[in-house]
Amino acid sequence: MVSARQELLSYDCDGLTLHRYQPPLVVLPETTEQVAAVVRLCHERGIPFVARGSGTGLSGGALAETPALVIATSRMRAILNLDLANRRVTVQPGVINSWVSRAVASDGFYYAPDPSSQVACSIGGNVAENSGGVHCLKYGVTSNHVLGLEVVLPDGTVTTLGGELPEMPELDLRGVFIGSEGTLGITTAVTLRLLRTPDSVAVLLADFTSMEAAGEAVRLVTEAAVQPAGMEMMDRLCIEALNDYFGTEEYPGDAAAVLLIELDGIASEVAEAVTLASSLCRRAGARTIREARDPEERALLWKGRKSAISALGRRFPSYYLQDGVVPRGVLPRVLAEIEALSARHGLPVANVFHAGDGNLHPLILYRSSEPGIGARVEALGAEIMELCLEVGGSITGEHGVGIDKRCYMDWMYSPGDLETMQWVRDALNPRGLANPGKLFPTPSGCAESARRQQRDPELAGLEVF
Amino acid sequence: MVSARQELLSYDCDGLTLHRYQPPLVVLPETTEQVAAVVRLCHERGIPFVARGSGTGLSGGALAETPALVIATSRMRAILNLDLANRRVTVQPGVINSWVSRAVASDGFYYAPDPSSQVACSIGGNVAENSGGVHCLKYGVTSNHVLGLEVVLPDGTVTTLGGELPEMPELDLRGVFIGSEGTLGITTAVTLRLLRTPDSVAVLLADFTSMEAAGEAVRLVTEAAVQPAGMEMMDRLCIEALNDYFGTEEYPGDAAAVLLIELDGIASEVAEAVTLASSLCRRAGARTIREARDPEERALLWKGRKSAISALGRRFPSYYLQDGVVPRGVLPRVLAEIEALSARHGLPVANVFHAGDGNLHPLILYRSSEPGIGARVEALGAEIMELCLEVGGSITGEHGVGIDKRCYMDWMYSPGDLETMQWVRDALNPRGLANPGKLFPTPSGCAESARRQQRDPELAGLEVF
Repeated sequence: MVSARQELLSYDCDGLTLHRYQPPLVVLPETTEQVAAVVRLCHERGIPFVARGSGTGLSGGALAETPALVIATSRMRAILNLDLANRRVTVQPGVINSWVSRAVASDGFYYAPDPSSQVACSIGGNVAENSGGVHCLKYGVTSNHVLGLEVVLPDGTVTTLGGELPEMPELDLRGVFIGSEGTLGITTAVTLRLLRTPDSVAVLLADFTSMEAAGEAVRLVTEAAVQPAGMEMMDRLCIEALNDYFGTEEYPGDAAAVLLIELDGIASEVAEAVTLASSLCRRAGARTIREARDPEERALLWKGRKSAISALGRRFPSYYLQDGVVPRGVLPRVLAEIEALSARHGLPVANVFHAGDGNLHPLILYRSSEPGIGARVEALGAEIMELCLEVGGSITGEHGVGIDKRCYMDWMYSPGDLETMQWVRDALNPRGLANPGKLFPTPSGCAESARRQQRDPELAGLEVF
Repeated sequence: MVSARQELLSYDCDGLTLHRYQPPLVVLPETTEQVAAVVRLCHERGIPFVARGSGTGLSGGALAETPALVIATSRMRAILNLDLANRRVTVQPGVINSWVSRAVASDGFYYAPDPSSQVACSIGGNVAENSGGVHCLKYGVTSNHVLGLEVVLPDGTVTTLGGELPEMPELDLRGVFIGSEGTLGITTAVTLRLLRTPDSVAVLLADFTSMEAAGEAVRLVTEAAVQPAGMEMMDRLCIEALNDYFGTEEYPGDAAAVLLIELDGIASEVAEAVTLASSLCRRAGARTIREARDPEERALLWKGRKSAISALGRRFPSYYLQDGVVPRGVLPRVLAEIEALSARHGLPVANVFHAGDGNLHPLILYRSSEPGIGARVEALGAEIMELCLEVGGSITGEHGVGIDKRCYMDWMYSPGDLETMQWVRDALNPRGLANPGKLFPTPSGCAESARRQQRDPELAGLEVF
C-alpha cells in the first residue's frame, strides 16, 4: 500500500503529462485473490477504483481524475504457464510486453504487438488500451493476440472471458473487455497467442525529398501484392532529433521524410518482397534505399524509430501526442494540412507514425513553462482530430480514449451509438465504480465539445458507418 | 409475408435436420427501416422473433422452437457500397457469401471466410454464427473480416457497431454481436474487409494409409515455418463416397485418409512452401503427394472437399454433423477414439474437417426412418463433445451453439461465466424477445445435461482458462 505523499507522486500522471491528479491511495496486489478482495471492498463501500499498469498510457486512462483507489498491477509479474506446443503463454497483467518475447525467443517464438513503449508497458495495460505497435500492420493489434482473460468484474467476482482456443462458443466478452480501458473490471491473467519467429527478415530505409512522395510510396506498397510487417514514417524534425540523439547521421539529414519498411517470411518470399517494395519506393520518388545488412543494423534502424519521442524530448521538454487514423489514400493531403495547422498555431509538430495503417502520431512540441500553453496545445490537437474525422478517420488508433479523447467521442458517434455502448458498460459496471469518467463524454468535462457541435451541426450528425 | 402452411414448411428447419419447428409467420423485409419497424412492433407487443438468413446453419440457430415471428433476410441482397481503394464492401445481410468474392474477383480481391455452404449461406447468417471455412486457418473467421455492422437492436433502434476502420475507439460491440446467434438483434448491413487475391496458389493432395499418419503430418506442417491457407482432412468413408459421387477415382480409393493443403502468396514463397510441406508429409508417412497442375485441377480437388457432405448423403440419407475443436497435438488420439465410439454405438461416423485448426467435423450417418434413431445419434454426439472437452477443446468451432449445443454450455463454462454473458445479453435484449432459447442452457431443455453433471462432478467444475 502506498500512501506517503512523496511516493504517491509517481502515480499522478501517465504518458499524457498535460494532466496530473495525485491519487489518495495506491494498492499493489500480487494475486488474483487480492485484486478480487480489494474490488469487492470497493463495491461494498462504493469506493471508485482505477487499475494501473506501468503508467505508460498516452490518454490518461490510468489517472484518478476524481479521488479513487489506484490498483496497480506492477507486482503481478509472473509468467503463469508456458505452452509452446499450443503456442500460448499465460501471464499476470504486470508482465512487461517485451518480457514475453524474451521468454520464448530461444524457442523460436515471439509476441507480435509491440508498442514503442514495449520495454516498459505492461500486458494488462495493453489489454486495457488494445495496444498496437509497429508490427500490427501485418499481425493485428492486442485483441488479435489475446485468447483468454481472467478478470475481476467491478463487483469483485472473478470470471474467465475467452479461453485457450482461438474461437470459443460464447458471447465474445473477451473482445469487448479488450480496449474497454478499465471500465469493465481488472485483468488478472492473460493468455497470449505466440507466433513463430519468421525465418527471414529485411528492413529497408527509403528517403524522400517530400512528405507527399513518402505518402505515395505507402499507397503503392500497401496496394501491391506485398504485405510488409511494418511500414513507419518519420519527418524531418524526427530525423534531425534522432541524428542529434545518436551523434551520427544514421538517417539522411537532408531528407524531408524517411520510410522504414520491414518484410518478413521465408527467405525467397522476403527477397522477392524487397525487390518489389524497393521498386515501388523508387517509383514514388525515393532518393536512396538502404537495406540493413545484418540483425545489428536492423535493430539500429528500429531503435531510431522507437527512440524518436525521447530524441525529440531532448529538444522540446514536453509533447502532446495525437493518435488519429486516416484512410491511407489521403495521407499526403492530411500531412500537408497538419503542417499548415502547425504554422497557423505557431507550435512545431513532428510526425512519426504507422504509415501503413494510416495511424498518425503527430507530436505537438511545447515548453510547459510558457503561460497558457496547455490550452493552445489542446486547441491544435482538437483541430488535428477534426481533420482526421473530416476525411473519414478516427480519433484514436491505439492509444485509447481515456480522459484525453472522451470529448471527441460524440464527434464520431451518435447519441444512440454511445448509449448502446453504455448499456453494456452498465451491465458489467452497474455502480460506475470502475475507472469513472473514462472513455465516454462526461457532461461536466465536455462543455467545449458541446459548444463545438452547436457551431458545426453537420459534423454532429456525421455518420461513421 | 408468408403464412400459407405449405410455404411455411420451407422455414421449419435449417441444416440441423434433427429438429423441425414450423413458424406461425414469416416476414421478408427489404430494407433496414422495414426490419426496424417489425422489430419495434415485436418489442411493443411482446412478440418473440427469430432472424433467418439462408437457413444453412447447422446448430438450429434460426429455428422458431417456440412460436415466434421469423424475420428472413433473403430479400435483402443488395451490395450497398464497394470501396476498393480502401478494400471494403458494404452489403445487405441476405447477400450470399460467394457473391462477395464474385463481385470483386475481376479487380483482384476476394472475401476470405468460406464456409462449405458458401454458394448458399448469407453474410448475415455468417455474422450471427461467426462462420469459419477452409481458409480460416491462415486468415481467421468472420469476426476478423467484419469492420462494421448496422444492426437493429431488440427494441427496434438502429445502431452502428464498429465502422470502416479496423480499430475503432469504442467498446467492441461489433465483436460481441458477431457470433451472438441473433440474440442481440438483427444485422441489416455489414462492411466487410476484402483481401488481395494471392499472386500464386498451390494445392497438394497427400494420401496416407492411416489416420494417425495424416494427423502427424498436420502436426509437423503446423509447427513448421509454413502457414498453409487451408489444411483439410478426409477419411476413407468420405473418399469412397466422393469417388462414387464423381464417378472417377479422384482421390486414392485405398487410402485411409487424405490431406488437402493449400499454399498461397507470392510465387517464390509458394514454391518454397510446397517443397517444405511435401517433405513434412513424406516424413509423416505420406504415400503419394500430388500437386494440382492448374486452376481447374485445384478447383476440382476443393470441389471434392466441399461436396463431401452431399456425397455422403447419397449413401446415408441423414447426418448429424458435430463441430468439436481439439488441440492439434491430440488429433490422432481423438480420431482413434471417435472410431471406437462409432463402433460401440453401431453408427458410422465420417470425418471431413479443418485439420489445421483442430476443428473436427465428425458426421454421424443414419437413416431417419429407423425407430428411436434420434436419441441414439444424439447420445453418440454427446460422447464426442465430451471427448473434445476432456482433451481441452471446445463444443463448437464455427457452427454455433444454437439449440443443438446449448445443453453442453455448462460443461464448458462455470455458472458465473454464463451469468456474465447473460448480463450483457440482457442489457441489449432485456425482454428476451430476440431469438429466445438459443446459445444458453435452458432449464426445461437441458435436464439431461444437469443429470450428467451430477454424475461427473469433476467435469462440472472444468476450468477452461
